[in-house]
Amino acid sequence: MILISMTKIKGIRAERELIHMLWNAGWSAVRIAGSGSMRYPSPDIIAGKGNRKMAIECKSIGKISMNITRRQIDDFKKFCSMFGAEPWLGVRFDNLNWFFLNPEDLKETEGKNFVISIELAKRKGLSFEQLTEK
Amino acid sequence: MILISMTKIKGIRAERELIHMLWNAGWSAVRIAGSGSMRYPSPDIIAGKGNRKMAIECKSIGKISMNITRRQIDDFKKFCSMFGAEPWLGVRFDNLNWFFLNPEDLKETEGKNFVISIELAKRKGLSFEQLTEK
Repeated sequence: MILISMTKIKGIRAERELIHMLWNAGWSAVRIAGSGSMRYPSPDIIAGKGNRKMAIECKSIGKISMNITRRQIDDFKKFCSMFGAEPWLGVRFDNLNWFFLNPEDLKETEGKNFVISIELAKRKGLSFEQLTEK
Repeated sequence: MILISMTKIKGIRAERELIHMLWNAGWSAVRIAGSGSMRYPSPDIIAGKGNRKMAIECKSIGKISMNITRRQIDDFKKFCSMFGAEPWLGVRFDNLNWFFLNPEDLKETEGKNFVISIELAKRKGLSFEQLTEK
C-alpha cells in the first residue's frame, strides 16, 4: 500500500497547474523527478523559453504563512547558480493566484530561517504574467 | 502490486549513472518526472553549466541496434528548440561506455523511422568527455 499525504497531493496538483500555465504561455516546462536515491539539490520545475531559463520551487500554502529553512533556500540558490537559471519561489495560497518571489526578498526569522507570508507575497511577488513576460 | 519491467529498471539505472557523471563533471543535472497525466514532450535529463544547456534522451540498448520512431525524435527536437537546449541522444550499449549522438546524425530506416546501431554510435557519437568539455 502506498500512502501519500494530502499535502503532497496538493503540492503535485499545484505543480501540474503551473506547468499547464507555462506551456499555455509559450514556455517549455518540466517537473523534476523526486530525488529518490540521488542526493543532489534540485528544484520542482524547470522552464525555458529561448535564452531565458527559470527554476521554480513551488510552495502550496494552506495557512497565512509558512516557514522555509535556510538550508533549502541555500541549496536552491546554489543549484540555480550552477545550472544557470533564474531562481523563483512559486507560492500558491488557497483561493489566491500564484505569486513569484525572488529568494532575496524572503524575510529572515529570528531562528535564521525564512518565512513566506501572504502579506510579503502580495507586496514583493510578481504575478504569473509579470514573471513570464519579463 | 506495482510491476516494473527489467527494461525500465535498466533505463532508470542508466539515467542515474549519467546524472552522477554529470555532477562529477561540474554540471547540474536533473531527471525529468514521467509524463503521468501531462501530455507535453519532455526529455529524460536536463543539464546546465553556465550558458550551456543540454537535454538528453537516454537509450539503454541490450542489442546491437534499436529503432526509434520519427515522432519521438520530432517531439524531442521540438522541445529542445522551444526550451533552448542542445539535443543529445545518450546511448548506452551493454558493456560499452556512453555515446552521445546529435539527432541529425541518426540513420533513417525504410519505414521512415530511425535506427541507432553500435556502428553508428562509434562512428558519429561523442564520448562523455567530448560532450561535457565542448
